[in-house]
This record gives sequence, C-alpha cells and structure tokens, in this order.
Amino acid sequence: MYRLLESIHTPQDIKKLSFAELASLAEEIREFLIQSVSKTGGHLASNLGVVELTLSLFKSLDLQNDSIVWDVGHQSYIHKLLTGRMEQFSTLRQFGGMSGFPKKSESEYDVFNTGHSSTSISAALGMTYGAALQGKTARTVAVIGDGALTGGMAFEAMNNVSACKKNFIVILNDNEMSIDENVGSLSNYLTRMRTRPIYFRLKSRLERLFSKIPKIGPWLLITTKRMKDAFKHLIMTSTVFEDFGFTYFGPIDGHDMPFLCHVLEQAKKINGPVLLHVKTKKGKGYKFAEDKPTAFHGVGSFSVETGERNGGGQSFSSVFGQQLAKLAEKQPDLCAVTAAMQCGTGLDEFSRNYPERCFDVGIAEQHAVTFAAGLAARGLKPVVAVYSSFLQRAYDQILHDVCLQNLNVVFCIDRAGLVGEDGETHQGIYDLSFLSHMPNMTILAPADYEELSAMLAYAVTEHQGPIAVRYPRGSEKSVSVSQKPFVFGQPEVVTEGETVCLLSAGHMLSEAIETQKLLKEEGISSAVVNLRTLWPLPEETLAAWAKTYSMFVTIEDGVKSGGIGEKMAAMLGDKIPVLIKAHENGCVPHGTIEQLYRSCGLDAKTIAAEVILRLKQE
Amino acid sequence: MYRLLESIHTPQDIKKLSFAELASLAEEIREFLIQSVSKTGGHLASNLGVVELTLSLFKSLDLQNDSIVWDVGHQSYIHKLLTGRMEQFSTLRQFGGMSGFPKKSESEYDVFNTGHSSTSISAALGMTYGAALQGKTARTVAVIGDGALTGGMAFEAMNNVSACKKNFIVILNDNEMSIDENVGSLSNYLTRMRTRPIYFRLKSRLERLFSKIPKIGPWLLITTKRMKDAFKHLIMTSTVFEDFGFTYFGPIDGHDMPFLCHVLEQAKKINGPVLLHVKTKKGKGYKFAEDKPTAFHGVGSFSVETGERNGGGQSFSSVFGQQLAKLAEKQPDLCAVTAAMQCGTGLDEFSRNYPERCFDVGIAEQHAVTFAAGLAARGLKPVVAVYSSFLQRAYDQILHDVCLQNLNVVFCIDRAGLVGEDGETHQGIYDLSFLSHMPNMTILAPADYEELSAMLAYAVTEHQGPIAVRYPRGSEKSVSVSQKPFVFGQPEVVTEGETVCLLSAGHMLSEAIETQKLLKEEGISSAVVNLRTLWPLPEETLAAWAKTYSMFVTIEDGVKSGGIGEKMAAMLGDKIPVLIKAHENGCVPHGTIEQLYRSCGLDAKTIAAEVILRLKQE
Repeated sequence: MYRLLESIHTPQDIKKLSFAELASLAEEIREFLIQSVSKTGGHLASNLGVVELTLSLFKSLDLQNDSIVWDVGHQSYIHKLLTGRMEQFSTLRQFGGMSGFPKKSESEYDVFNTGHSSTSISAALGMTYGAALQGKTARTVAVIGDGALTGGMAFEAMNNVSACKKNFIVILNDNEMSIDENVGSLSNYLTRMRTRPIYFRLKSRLERLFSKIPKIGPWLLITTKRMKDAFKHLIMTSTVFEDFGFTYFGPIDGHDMPFLCHVLEQAKKINGPVLLHVKTKKGKGYKFAEDKPTAFHGVGSFSVETGERNGGGQSFSSVFGQQLAKLAEKQPDLCAVTAAMQCGTGLDEFSRNYPERCFDVGIAEQHAVTFAAGLAARGLKPVVAVYSSFLQRAYDQILHDVCLQNLNVVFCIDRAGLVGEDGETHQGIYDLSFLSHMPNMTILAPADYEELSAMLAYAVTEHQGPIAVRYPRGSEKSVSVSQKPFVFGQPEVVTEGETVCLLSAGHMLSEAIETQKLLKEEGISSAVVNLRTLWPLPEETLAAWAKTYSMFVTIEDGVKSGGIGEKMAAMLGDKIPVLIKAHENGCVPHGTIEQLYRSCGLDAKTIAAEVILRLKQE
Repeated sequence: MYRLLESIHTPQDIKKLSFAELASLAEEIREFLIQSVSKTGGHLASNLGVVELTLSLFKSLDLQNDSIVWDVGHQSYIHKLLTGRMEQFSTLRQFGGMSGFPKKSESEYDVFNTGHSSTSISAALGMTYGAALQGKTARTVAVIGDGALTGGMAFEAMNNVSACKKNFIVILNDNEMSIDENVGSLSNYLTRMRTRPIYFRLKSRLERLFSKIPKIGPWLLITTKRMKDAFKHLIMTSTVFEDFGFTYFGPIDGHDMPFLCHVLEQAKKINGPVLLHVKTKKGKGYKFAEDKPTAFHGVGSFSVETGERNGGGQSFSSVFGQQLAKLAEKQPDLCAVTAAMQCGTGLDEFSRNYPERCFDVGIAEQHAVTFAAGLAARGLKPVVAVYSSFLQRAYDQILHDVCLQNLNVVFCIDRAGLVGEDGETHQGIYDLSFLSHMPNMTILAPADYEELSAMLAYAVTEHQGPIAVRYPRGSEKSVSVSQKPFVFGQPEVVTEGETVCLLSAGHMLSEAIETQKLLKEEGISSAVVNLRTLWPLPEETLAAWAKTYSMFVTIEDGVKSGGIGEKMAAMLGDKIPVLIKAHENGCVPHGTIEQLYRSCGLDAKTIAAEVILRLKQE
C-alpha cells in the first residue's frame, strides 16, 4: 500500500527517485496522512498543501548539511515521514508519542523547534550566519506561510536580510490562508502578485526590452536621463521582496515538482537572499479539506469517507462569543479585536452582527493590542480575543501601551492553562505570571460558562482599567457550583469545611472539588473556594481565613513561578502554611489535558496526597 | 528674545501666523531648545530635526479635534512648547517636572503616551477607527521615524491599514537615523527613494504618459493586454508603501513649511491611508548636533558654545564592552547581537575588532533574540546586548525560541532597574519578574564592574542554557566589597552580622551596606549578602541561613510582583519573616535615580526604618 513510502528511511533516499516516482510517492503520502490523521487527529490541511514542496526540498537540498526551518511547524508531517518517523504517526500528538511540531529531541533533521508564527526567517538567518562563522557551507532554508509573514518579526528579519552575502533561501508558502482567511495589505498584495505572469520571466524580458529602447518616437518624451533612471528603477524594484534585498522567483506552482526543483537549483546558485514565492493549495488532494481548510486546519479524529468530524457543541469560546454579541446589542462602544483567530476565539456571531466593530488584524498580536489601546484612548471599549500562548507576543504592548496608561482594554484569554495535544509551545501557562506583575492589571478566571458570562459583563460595563478574563480550551466540567453570583473581588465559598482551604483558580475548581472528596475519605475536612478574582488577591478575606484554617492549598493551571499561589505564599506564608499546586516546570509536553494534569501533579489524587503529607509535616 | 514663541498659548495661535512668521518662530524655537536642553539635558537632535514639521502639522491640523501620536515621543518637545508648556521646560525630565515624552496627564493635546518605538501607527489607527465609530471627524496623525519603522509592529500596523476608508495620515520622519545609524533593507530602500525625483509628481506624469501611449512603434511589442497590464502594474505599485495600500507623497523637504503645508492639505483630502515621506535633518540648526546626532540624541547638560558635554568615563556598559572584546580574542564562537543600540550597550570596541561577529539588526528586538537563537542552534555563543525595557519587546522570543529549547544565549541586560530621567516607559524594572518564570533561565546581577566581568566570563564560557546578566545604567557605586571571586550559585557574604540578613540583588548592594550602617547606629546587627546569582535562588544556603537570622530583607531594583523577594518569601516565609524591598508600583516616573529610590522607599534610610518597625512587630 505504501510501497515507496516504506522504502524511505533517510532524506538521501528521496534524491534517488525520479519525478514520476516522486509523484507516486506524493500520492502515497497524501493517502497515509489522511488515514493516519483521521485516527489520531492533527493538522491536516496545511500538510496536504506542502507534500510536493517538501519532496522538492528533500530532493534539491542535501539534508546531511542543509536544514529546513518550518515556520509554525504544523506543516512538518511530511518532513517527519521522510526522516524515519513513519511508524510514530500512530502516536501523533499523544502523551509520550510524536509531537505535531518539529522537535530537536526527535530527530537530527529537526534543527529548530517552532510552534508560534513568524520565527523561521530570524532563526534560519541566525543559522546561516552561524554556519558561515564556522566555515561550513551548510544552507538553512526557511519555509514561511503568507499568513505568518504578516507577523512583525518576519518583517524585522526581512529587513535584516539584505546584508547577508551567503545563499539564503526563504520559501513563501502562499496558500492564501492563515488559520482563518488572510486579511490585510500583504494579503491583497500577494493576491495581485498571484494573478501576474510569472514574474521572473517577465522581468528579464522587460529588462531586455528596456535595453533596446530606441531614442526616437514617443520615447523621446522620456529620454532625459532623470526620467529614464526613474523608469528603470520602477521596473527594477517592483516587488516588495526585492525592495528588501531578496532575489525574487515566482509565483511558482507548488505542486509542480520538476519546476520547483528547477527553480530551487537556480536559487541555490545565488549568493545572497532569495525568495521563492510558491503557490500551494491547503488541503490539496482531500476534497473535504480543500473545501473547508479552516475546519481541517487542526482536527480531531474524523471519517475519511464523509469528512465528518467529532466534537463541536458548546465551549468556553462559543459562550464568550455569544455573550459578547449579546452585550454588544446594548453597548455600542463595545468592539472586538482578534489576531487571525476570529473563528477560534468564537467571534463568528459578533463579526456577522457587528462587522464594523470587529477587527481581525491578521497574525499581529503586537499591533492588535496597541490598536485596541488606540480604540480605548478614544473612549471605546475594546475586547482583545486571543489565545493565552499567543498573547505572549504582545507582552510589551500590554505593559507599555495599555497598563502604564491604565486604559480600558479587556483581554479575553482563551486556551488559558494546558491546551493538550499542541504541546509545549502552545500551553497557555504563563499569562497569570506575566500579567500579574503589570501595573493596574486585574485578572478574573471563571470556573464555568455562567461565570464567564458574568465576568465578561462586569469587565465591559463596570471595570475601569485593563482587565483579563482567562478561560481554558474546551468545555466546562460538569461540576455543581454554589450558584452564587459573581461579585468583583469576592471569592466564592463553594463548600464549607475545616482544616484545609482549597483555593482554586478558574477551571481548576473541578479538581479542587474532587480533591475535597478524596480528603474527606481520609477524614480530612476541607473547604473549597473559587477565587474568581485572581489578581489583585482579596488580601483581607484571605488574611481572615488564614486564622480559621490550618492550611491553604492554591490550585492554578499556570507556572508556579510568579503565579497566584506564589503570591499568596509570599503574602501569608508567615501566617499559614501554603501548599502551591501549579506547574513546577514550564516545559509541558503534548498529551490529553487529563494525562498532563496527572504528569504535572495537578490532578486531584496527587493534590490530596500532597495535602495529607504536608499536614503530617506541619 | 522669544517674542513670537511667548505669544503662542494654544495650537490655534499657530494657525494665524504667516509662513514668514513661522520661519522666525522656528528660529526662536531652535534657540530656546538649545539653551534649555543645554541646562537640563534631554533629547536635542531629534527635536531640532522636527521644528518645521511640528509647526506645519500645527498649522495644517485642527488640534481641537485632530491629534498627533508621536512615535517614541522624544521628539515631542516642540509639541509641548506649542501647547502651553514653555515655562515647564526648566523642569524637563526632573522629578515632579515635565516628562521628556508625551503624557496624557500633562496636556489634553498629548493623546497617547509613547516611549518605546514603533507603536504610533497602531495607536493612531485604533484612534481613527474609534473616532469613526463615535461618528466624529477627528483625525489622528502618526509621526514615525525611519528607524522606528523597522520595528515589526509598525509593519503589522501597515498591513492592517489598507482596510481603512477614513483619512489616515502617517508621517514618515526620515532622518536616516535610529539612535545609532540605521541598518537593513528598509534603510537601503529609503536611501534609494530619497535620491529619486519627487515621486508623486513623477507618478502622475507617467500615468498621463501611459494613457496617451500610441498603439504603434516600439510599443507594439507590449500591446498585448497581458503585457500592458503587467507594465501598468509595475508603474502603479512602485513603492512599498503603495503596496501596503497607502497613497504615497514624497520625499518632501521637512524644513520647507509652505510646501509641507501644501502637501498636508492634499493629504487631508484623501479618504484612506496616506504616507508622507518627509526628509529631515537630525540636529538641524545646531552645528554640534548636526555633526554628531548620536551624541546629541539624549544628552546631559552641555556647553552651547563648544558642544562639550559633561560625563563620560567608565560605566557598566563600557566595562561590559571591554570584557566582551577581551573574551572574544580567545573565543571565536562568541558573537554579539544588538537592536540599534551598538553604541549605547558598549559594543563599539567589539564591533570594530570583530565586525563579522557583531550583528546590529536595527530596532527589532524580536528578531534579535530569535536570530541569536539561530546562532546558538548552530553552536555559536551569542550575547544579546539590550536595555532591560526594550527586552520586553522580545518576551515571547526569549520564552518560545530560547528557553523552551534551552539554547545557549547570553542576555546582557543594560539599564536594568531604574533609569532615571527617561521615566515610566523606560524603567528596567520588569526583567527579573518576566525572566524568572521562564524555564531553564538563570539570572545573575553584579554589584560592581569586577563582578560584571567575572559573570560575563562565566556566562559565555561555562554556562549551559539561557542566562541573563543584569546591570544598571551608569557607573558602579564606590563601595568596598569582599573581593571574593564570583562562584555560580553562591551568594557572597559581604559582611557578617547577626539578627538581620540583608540580601541584596546586584547594584542594590550599596543601599544594603548603607542600611547596615544605619541599623548599627540603632544597635541592630545585620549581615550583608550580595546574592549574585538571583535565579534560581540558592535554596539550601538560604534555608540554612533562615535558621541563623531573625529576619531576611530582600533588596532589589525591580517590581515586587513576581520578583526575587516575593519568591524568597514564598519559599521561606514559614521559616523566617521576609521583608521585601522592591518597587510596589510598576509606574515609576522620571527623576534622578536617587530621588526615585527615595520616593519608592528603596533608599537605605527607608529600608532601615522598615526593618526596625518590622523587628518590633515580630
């Protein structure tokens, strides 16, 4: 079934194949990916789009010396397949199994870990200079999507590229998509480029033409040297990429391997930066993915025959989106800002109902936040909808442009805490630590949908100053809570108890309640508190409680260092023992969220055991 | 002496002046700025460059409705002068006086606070959309330098601009300089643009010409529709800015007010984004500043007649630079990366001696860090030399690209802690909090030059994994230390003592020693410890000391939240009282560092008083 594919053990094996064999191999790869990902889930559409591109790179490069940096990295499945990891695909994104992103720990051919967008040109340029300083001829190729190219750091890298005198190839994988549809000037620009005749042919023809311009006829009008120079200049620097110092080839059909390899051979001969503008089709070869590339960007398991996917239903994201749309009815100053995550963050309904108040700025978290600050400076009430892990990109904009100015910006932080299968680079476990040290910042965390709605309403209608509401990926846990309405600054006592006070942050409430049960079985009485307002901490209430209980246990889905538990321990550690349950290590791999909680000791069983141990020690 | 200038009380007063009067006013302003800044110190060269630009904006805009966002903001002195703040110039950058940057708290005409680079287009675009949603016709103009334009977030904003259907004017203030000389593709590009004929005239002539192309003669060669469209396209999208959806005007002489105002009137009529490319001369009108714009970027007091400046001499920056150059002799894999701060961070000697190993990537902190990660991935040993406040821009790159991969990147963090006169936006008080929650990160802090040299040597030769060395602006305090050599992970006991253990981080050692003296006067014995390795904390040593002393006092020049003291209190608060001395509030205004320490309670006198109070309470 996978005759050719199974014969590939190292990248060198690709180099021996004819283009006809490569075409057959491409078919096998597509079949393998669709079958495999339909069972494990994973990123499908982006990988189906780069089958021929990956094969061409493997054929053209010498991966014993050369390397590829895959921007974002979710399109690296074929790279993994061709570098001896075919058998590991059954464990894709599973706990202890193969990562869905490049990982140096997996293979010598994964040279630089990626996950977040727009890093590849910087990393590859650094590696290129590094090899040069070592006197090596190793080449590092960056493969970056047109969506990722809108991220500011990609431009910073492009700006730095002109000085490079070494062969340095950037592949622009232009599939006209971020995860959502692309937006913005660059996208418009690339659309115009795509419809142009193949540029690098045209250009040489124009240049030849230009050299033959007669000095007579209508051309007399522009024969002054000044005019001629200007005209020549207009022709010579006619792509943005050339303005940035790249030699530009494109657009090239990214599924035409002979032509791709031909151009790659040309590109390899150039001393200096080269940009290959390659057009690919996301989801190529699988109808359902071609039709709905966004739906098949990252999928769970699905039926190969029908394209039907499991899952759906209500989630924190959808509840956020519905509530925001509802609030917007009455509140005309409410706006939403998202960085290429309109669908993922649940803004569909809001954007349909209030298109003029919904701003998708592209993969550009820095701009998103300061743009929101601008809206707020004018008196609007912007809500920035963003995944926790990507908000990291805008650290300074939150601090410098929002917090120092104490502006009314609401951060709705989706995928806060562990995200599961995407692993290390995507875990949203830093936001509590980095937001809580910014001036004027307030942080709320709901345990369930109802709280999320209440907190969002509070944030957009009552709160003054920057405020963040953080909630996890997926759906609420089916746990009963006290139903006490949300009051800003007041923790909710979910169930009364003695001895131990379990203080839970947001969605960790389900583990806290489970911990309480386990402690009860051991004859230990404990109270469960839903903190709700995580920052600033309700100092007086906590100080009073410190006199009532024998121990505080803080439970949060974030790194321990700089987190809520650490702050509480620093505040009250001399009054009451504080057991901090949080992520001790910031590198949390992929797996189901439940598996990861267990491995990180954030499951009820481990928490209860540690409480019992600590009680004995005190 | 300042007849015209003194007659200006509101922006409206400018609108009444003739161009002849404006020219006289410009002269008065220059004279006033040179005299005033020569006494107070401040940003001179950048302000001298935008006198006519500011006057033209004030004449052309209606600042009752319209607003200006000054990128970075150090060029806002004339704006301040013309909005009723002339008398406050004697207090410029002084504690309690006028800030050197735009501040909403100072004036209704300061609409958005700036300080860090590249934020203005995002903020102004947000304000433009905000006004539109409010049904107002208010215009927001962004003024951004060519250096700031290399920052990634400026590009993110430019990418988002094409959708804007409102009049939105960006002024590119092209003075061919960052603080240092500009580098990179954009700089090269602008250089080419500058030497072109005035573009917006040429373009319309070419377009007219094109419309009249006869269908005969040599043009027959390109009369096929395809060829013609392509050719037209080449002419139509011939600046990067137009590719991004801007209507482009330029380059324009930024010191020719009648022409500037003429173009501004044209620009105001356009529905959609407009970019005015304005050429200015940094330091214009003051010979010494024109000749040495970098030296006169931010200055202390100086002699107007001779241009001689006070200060100079050895500093943490210069010691860093000398030591790095020395280490590089023996270590061929040592590289330096800086983001437009080669001079400020002390890399002059290194860049002269090892140009091929010194990378100035422009104002592009994100790229700088990931570029360094790329060098490290190849086995090189990169040192990122950066100011603390600007490192905030690269939070995710440090976390995602360096720390998660545990790469050998050395961060040499200059201007860590309070920086003084630049104030709120520039205080380097967050690095301890944000670096200490990143996995695999180590943080060192020297108390004096010798320690800095030793720590740098350790970091580049022995340490595995990411490491930061943080040191303050300016020079070491003349305090005697124990002269014990630096050993990684070991705190230095500077002077023995009983009862209180003063644990100081880096340059706070001088305050700790002073505190010890004050406590001694009160009959309280204290030990002084220089932590040296701030993170991870030496847990065992500290736990042992917790049994010996009655109180720990941590002293750090950083925010309390997430800082070293808080971590120590969380770790040992149940064993020993921990008094945390750090910045309680992240918004620290401008003033001398000594004034600010006092106002923040980080001076020896306040520390000693709090220790005594706390001892009584315990």
